[in-house]
Order: sequence, then structure tokens, then C-alpha cells
Amino acid sequence: MFELVFNGPVLGNDWAQIDLTAEFSCGNERKAVKGFYDGDGRYVVRFLPEIPGEWRWKVTGAVNGEGSMTCEPAKCAHGLVRAVDTHFEYEDGRTFMPFGTTVYALAHQDDALVAQTLESLKAAPFNKVRMCVFPKHYDYNHNEPPFYAFEKKADGGWDVNRPCIAFWHRFEKILDRIAAMDIQIDLILFHPYDRWGFSALSQADNLIYLDYLLRRLAAFPNIWWSLANEYDLCAEHKSLADWEEIEAYVAANDPYRHLLSNHNCMCFWDFNRPNVTHVCLQTKALSEIPRWIGQYRKPLVIDECCYEGDLPHFWGSISGQEMVRRFWRCCASGAYCTHGETFLSEDDILWWARGGRLKGESPKRIAFLREVMESLPGPLTPREEGLLALARMDEAAVEASLPLLPEQMRGFVKLFSNSIRRMGIEDRTAHLSGEHAWEAHCGEEAYLTYFDLQCYGEQTVKLPEDKRYRAELIDVWNMTREVIAEDISGETKLKLPGRDNLALLITRIQ
Amino acid sequence: MFELVFNGPVLGNDWAQIDLTAEFSCGNERKAVKGFYDGDGRYVVRFLPEIPGEWRWKVTGAVNGEGSMTCEPAKCAHGLVRAVDTHFEYEDGRTFMPFGTTVYALAHQDDALVAQTLESLKAAPFNKVRMCVFPKHYDYNHNEPPFYAFEKKADGGWDVNRPCIAFWHRFEKILDRIAAMDIQIDLILFHPYDRWGFSALSQADNLIYLDYLLRRLAAFPNIWWSLANEYDLCAEHKSLADWEEIEAYVAANDPYRHLLSNHNCMCFWDFNRPNVTHVCLQTKALSEIPRWIGQYRKPLVIDECCYEGDLPHFWGSISGQEMVRRFWRCCASGAYCTHGETFLSEDDILWWARGGRLKGESPKRIAFLREVMESLPGPLTPREEGLLALARMDEAAVEASLPLLPEQMRGFVKLFSNSIRRMGIEDRTAHLSGEHAWEAHCGEEAYLTYFDLQCYGEQTVKLPEDKRYRAELIDVWNMTREVIAEDISGETKLKLPGRDNLALLITRIQ
Repeated sequence: MFELVFNGPVLGNDWAQIDLTAEFSCGNERKAVKGFYDGDGRYVVRFLPEIPGEWRWKVTGAVNGEGSMTCEPAKCAHGLVRAVDTHFEYEDGRTFMPFGTTVYALAHQDDALVAQTLESLKAAPFNKVRMCVFPKHYDYNHNEPPFYAFEKKADGGWDVNRPCIAFWHRFEKILDRIAAMDIQIDLILFHPYDRWGFSALSQADNLIYLDYLLRRLAAFPNIWWSLANEYDLCAEHKSLADWEEIEAYVAANDPYRHLLSNHNCMCFWDFNRPNVTHVCLQTKALSEIPRWIGQYRKPLVIDECCYEGDLPHFWGSISGQEMVRRFWRCCASGAYCTHGETFLSEDDILWWARGGRLKGESPKRIAFLREVMESLPGPLTPREEGLLALARMDEAAVEASLPLLPEQMRGFVKLFSNSIRRMGIEDRTAHLSGEHAWEAHCGEEAYLTYFDLQCYGEQTVKLPEDKRYRAELIDVWNMTREVIAEDISGETKLKLPGRDNLALLITRIQ
Repeated sequence: MFELVFNGPVLGNDWAQIDLTAEFSCGNERKAVKGFYDGDGRYVVRFLPEIPGEWRWKVTGAVNGEGSMTCEPAKCAHGLVRAVDTHFEYEDGRTFMPFGTTVYALAHQDDALVAQTLESLKAAPFNKVRMCVFPKHYDYNHNEPPFYAFEKKADGGWDVNRPCIAFWHRFEKILDRIAAMDIQIDLILFHPYDRWGFSALSQADNLIYLDYLLRRLAAFPNIWWSLANEYDLCAEHKSLADWEEIEAYVAANDPYRHLLSNHNCMCFWDFNRPNVTHVCLQTKALSEIPRWIGQYRKPLVIDECCYEGDLPHFWGSISGQEMVRRFWRCCASGAYCTHGETFLSEDDILWWARGGRLKGESPKRIAFLREVMESLPGPLTPREEGLLALARMDEAAVEASLPLLPEQMRGFVKLFSNSIRRMGIEDRTAHLSGEHAWEAHCGEEAYLTYFDLQCYGEQTVKLPEDKRYRAELIDVWNMTREVIAEDISGETKLKLPGRDNLALLITRIQ
């Protein structure tokens, strides 16, 4: 990120939407950005060059100037994370697989707690953190934040035209320290858990807030825009049309097109919308992932599927073992998963909202999973075969597929598909979710199956005949990898130990 | 069961549908039944008196006679099991809670194996066994049975007009020995796993077979009719209309109206049909149980939800722990569950089809569950609250419910219901199944919650204010019951140990 700082008049009233624009150009590349007022007469323009070279800039408006700077080729940075087909890549083409965690009110804790949280993140396997701009009011979250995003009006309401500079300075320092650990920030722009009034701003004020936020933060390379946490629980103050306007506004005012999505409680956001880069879901219905990936053709992140902990809440009381299972289910479906931790604690410091120390059993197993996933030749896509694939086909598609099947299979396939087609949607959806197997692949290079609850004593795998493979059995909890077959191809029977919570990774031998 | 035996002419050709009827009367009770030919010139009429007293009988047709017998009041028998609302009762009003197991080809094994299976059943917690009339051909099931239900025709086909008397004698002896252990027989009349041709009989032959079977077996007090195992996989030889005719035929020709249902692979049988007494499901979608119970208003048995074992098949490879979880999920939903066991074995004797010895870890925990369930004051009904109940309500119903809610809840409830209503059926069904809690109750006498994956550190229960209760924490795997609160009522916070696989049973103190 390149930053230009100018001195100019000290502003005493409105300073959110100042007239300050800059144009940056390098060869045929040309980009217009807006600058912002940073208090004490400081006027700042931030810019994120996406190609190396000599960039010329020209600033006009509240302050004026021009010049140039040289952007050297990146040494260790990889650029912004982008959605490419159903996975993520940095701009330099390197695959990014999110292993996220959740610390909603990270930035609204005192300095000591923030420091402890960042220390914890340093030792943790997470490369994405979901966190909010606004403070959070909810069970176990009753502390006042050190700063708020805006100054107050005389009537006690928030004055979005006077952003609180101290808030933004502190907030950005925290973002910088997270970025320094190579962690993506899934920044939550709105949420409903509020006692201060941030969730009840007028739509006009929402857009002024977003304008200022985008002027300040759009040039941060490691930020994703999460329009909301649980957008649908904000309905008292934001209609669907408001959300669509917010989405359009963020997309239009972000010169770099950071990743953008929106997080639900119940009804999902419409991920088919062109400005939405990826699918962000709160759901426990992980067996539906292949359907959703097929439907949206975008990367899919399960950004909430319960947290490891012991709260009295359904969503905050799964075991570390179950958290790990859910991560494997997502990864072995070609999707990604996000962690959170909610252990009852005398000091009311729960990781999921306030940070602090990680106490659970899942993070080190998530680290192990991340290692496995990053050892793959590339990202995975879901492999839905047999019954489930059949269930998605209409009669004509089934008929067309029959000649491709071995003759003795055809009658069987017709029986199943005819029976499935007679089911009502509700029964069919529920019934077939129970038949789901977690299988994904990377072309013909790698096949990952998570056996989950299944205690197979043996399995027959069907691999391409013309390539050679190695089969590894992975114990996802005990974090072991054992080669159980070398140099196999075609149809191969593998002996398995007949217990649950194992994965089978088959990779091509070069 | 009362049996009349007459001697008459030896029959050499057709002996299935002989002309032999009997009328039994006692006071105003009057019942017509059919008799059957039992080989060697033996003509038999069986009758099951359902009330005690002096019964007169008159037999006409192939043999003739009349007389009377006295039926004494039952000493330890309770009568047939009937469906009453959404649970089962014996005719004397005693609750029957099925804890079933599955030994499909029990009767098609040699005597030694049958004897071992019956010994195993004696020591097991099961009070219902699913078993077939016809032998089974499938993986791990390749042995020839000692006998078949019919003699063969000259052309090699089965002659349904000449039932094999030796088969039926042996079969009935096995049924008798099971009955002597107070186990209900869920008798499977047809199934598709066949290499002999029993699944491919003409519909006319099917009805002749059923006629003979009903003449012989309808007077057995402990039989249930399961029209099929996986009726929908029999579609090559039986249309839906055929199945409906089979259902009607069995119901019309069974003088005692034994329990009757039909078992699916994919599309469920239509349990709304008047002849169907209870819901019999193969499915793993256990969170839908409350919806189905509400929809069908009949007792619900999950008669297949995978088996404990280590087969390479999805359906035959869950852990004992998972089998036990599924039993608890069913019971804590007001339904019942059926066990099966499929461990790979050198002798290819797998419990689920052939019997033998039980090797798994689930039966003793199912015994413990049965003990808990039978200690309840009565059968349970599902208790679906909060989100899930809301999801079943339309807007008008939600509006009507709002005044009954505390004021601070109303906005929240509207937000959720509005969002849920916007979801497509597929997403809604899948998404909400992940929010399901397993809760059932027996009026205000008992409340059972199975916490399953949840590791609650505390829970607040809401009990009637005017009654007193005891709370017990149940460890479903380690089979312990611990009283954690005595003499509670109203809203009460309970401290819990923060681990999974526990149940909470709250019972009223008298």
C-alpha cells in the first residue's frame, strides 16, 4: 500500500466526504481513488498498485499535487486474494485456502487483550479472521470499546460526517498487525448485535460510513468485505433493497474489487449476484455443499457452523472433535470452513467475540488439516457420485446416462431414480442428505474422501487406469498419515481399520 | 392361538386355496376365518380369540364340524400390539415400545445357526425382529435355505398352489420360539434381493401366496406385516398399483388387523393410507421425525438407519456409538429405532441377515435406553419448539402467536420467520435440519432431551410452575444416571459437565 500525506486546513465540522481524488497511472493502467481526512489537517490518499513499475499520481480537491513513485515487484507478497472458479487464488496465481476463525469484537477490546489475541493468532493455524467494524452487544459481550467509529452529535446520535480519527487509527494498527501475520481480514461492515445505535443508522448515513471506510481501507491488500454478520437479522433497520444498495455501493467504490460476500442467519444472501465473489454461509447443512457449488459456481466458505465450546447455546457448544469433523466435511466437499471458540469463562473472555487465548482441542487438528490441504497439487472440487448425482438428474438425463453404464447397473439406476423422483422436495432433501459421502478431487491428480462416521473395514477405489497413485490413510484426530498402498491404479481394494474419523487421500505418483 | 385339526383327503395337486372356512362366535362377537391344508390329509383352522369366554365354532368346506372351546382370561399375554395415536399399546392397554433388530434371513439358515441366533436374541434387548419369508440373495448372503415356501412346477417355476409344507412347519416353529421370548415379528412379505424368482412372481401368484400365508399365520398374536423390505426396489415386478393391491389384500384377509406397514429404500410408502397402521422408514434424516409424526399422526419406527459394522457399504459401517446415538435421537423425538449389525466375518455370518452372535457395542447400550424408556410414565411425543416450530408456521400463524410471547421476543420471532419464509424448500429443509434439538415429553409428567453433539456447560429448563420435578443426567454410552437436581419447578438453571452424548430426563415427583 502506497500512502500520500498532505497537510491542509484543519476541519471542524464534516470531514467524511471531503472533495479529494487522485488518479494513478502506469503504462495503460489508470485508476481513480478517493482520499480522506485523517484529523489535525492531515489529508491522506492510499493506493494499492497491482502491477510493478513507475506510477504517476495526481491529487486534486481539498489538497493538490502530483508526482510519481516506483512500485518494485513483490518479494514475498502475493497480491489480493481473488475468486477463481470455485476456489481462491492470490493475484500471482498461488492458491489460497481459507482456514478462518472468528473474533467478532477483536478490535473493541483493551490493548492488553488485543495483544494477547494477536499472540494467539500467531501460534494458530488460521489465515482468515472474521471481525467487525462496530462493537458487539450480546451474551458475554458487555464491555464498552475504547473508541467508536464516529463522534457524537449534540443530540447524542452518531455523526457519520465526523468519523472518530482515534478509532480509525487504532483499528488500522490492529489490521496492520494481523496483515503482518499473513492473515486475511473478513471485515464485517454491519451486524445486528448492538446497543449503541450503529445498526440503526439511516441508509444515507450507512453510505457515508461506507464511503469513509472505503477511502481508508480499500488499499489494504488483505481485506475481504463481509457486508454483514447475519444480514437477515438486521431487517428492522435495513430492507433487502438497502442491502442491495450497500452491496452495489461497496463494489462501486472499491477500486480493487476485494472479495465481497454477505453472511446469513436463516435465508442465504443471493450469491448469484454479480458483485458477490464467493459464497459465505452460516449453516450446518454441509452435505448440500456440492449442490451449492454447482449452483453458484463460486468458492464456498462455511463461515459459521457452530463453535467449539460449552455455552448453553446450540451454536456455541460443539466438541473439538465435532468442529474438526465439520472442517474435514467442508474440505472434502471442495469448500472451506471457519472456526470459532466459545468456552464459558469466569472473565467472560470468549475467543469468538473478544479473543484472548485459545483453549480448545480443534486448532491443532485444523493446523494438521491445513498442512494436508496445502500439500495437495491444487484446490479440490466436489465429487458427487452415485445416488446423490442421480438425485439431481431428471428422467431424460438419467435415460441419456444409461448407455454409459455397465449393463447390469442400468436397471438398478432406473429403479433408484424413479423412486427418488416420486419424493416430495422436503422428504427428498432430508432423506438424501443422510446418504451423503464427503468426496472431492483435484482433477486426476488427487482424491480426498473423508469417511467421517463410516467405519469401513475395506473400500474399493476406482482410479484412472493409465496413472499410478499412492493411497494414504489419515487419522484426522490423532493427526497421522500412513501410506497403505503404493503404485496402484484402476479398481483397487484397500484394507481399512474399521473405525471412524479417517480420511483417504489418494495422490498421483509422478 | 386356538388350533383345530381335521383329517381329510390327501391332496396331490393344488392345496393353497382350498375351500375351508370357519366361523367363531362368543356372545355378540363373530369372526370368519379360513383354514389351510397342512399336508398328509391334515386340515387346520387357527383362531385367535380376542376376548375370553365360551367360543363356538363351525367349520365348513373340505372338512366339516362344529364345537366349542373356552378361552380363559390371559395370564401373562397382553394381546396384539396396536397403534394408538402416535405410539403402540398391547390390547390390554400396556405400552409397547419397539426396540427392534434385523435378521432378514433368520429362518433360512441351518438349525444350528438358527438356534444360536435365538440364544443371542434371548440375551439381547430387542423386542421386535425384522425377518423375511423368502430367502435373501445379496452380498454375504449366498447360502441356500433348507426349504423354500413353495414346491416347484415341472418347468422349474414356483408353484404357489403347492406350498411347501416342510418349509411352513419349520418356519412356524421358529416364529413360535421367537414369540416365546416375547418378541414381535416384523414379518417381511416381499423383498427384491432374490436369485430364486420369489420377487418375480406374477401378481396373481403373489395373492395366492398371501392367502396361504394369512390362513396359516394371521392367528399368531405377535406378527406385524411388513409388506416389503425396500418396496420401491421391487419396481421391475411390482407396480405401485400392485403394492396397493397387496396392502388391501393383506388388510382384508387378516381377521385380526395386525400392524401393517411398508419399508422404503428411497420414496416412502404413503403412510396416510387407512390400512397402514404405523410409519416404517428407512432413512437417516432423523431430525424430520417430528414433522412426520405431525403429518401422519401414527407411531413412527425408523426401521433402518445404517447398521453397526465395518462393511465397505455406507449403510453397514457405523460405529456402535453412532448406532446408539441414532437410537437416542429417535426415542427423544417420540419415535422408535431398529438395530442391525454387519461386521465383516470370515464365516460370512453377519447378524443383519443370517444371525449368529452379536459382536457390537450397541446392544447393551440399547438395553440401557430401553430401561430408561420403560421407566417413563408413558410414551413420548415430540416437542418441537423455537425455530423449528416457527419454520412450520405461515405468516398468519406467526402473527397470531405474537401476543402470546413476551414483548421483547416478538421482533426477534418476526425476523426469523420472515427470513425462513424467504428460503427455497430445499435450502430451508437442509438448513433447519442442522438446527434441530432432540426433545420429547410425556405430557407434564416427563421431559427427555438428548443433547447429542452439544457439550452444554449449563442449560435453563422451563417447567410448569405448579409441579415439582427431578432432573437426571444420563450418560448414554457409559450408562449412568445421576440426579442433578431435586424438587425443581419453573425456570431452573442446571449445571452440566460440558461434554457430548448426554441426555437430560426430567420427571415429575409425586
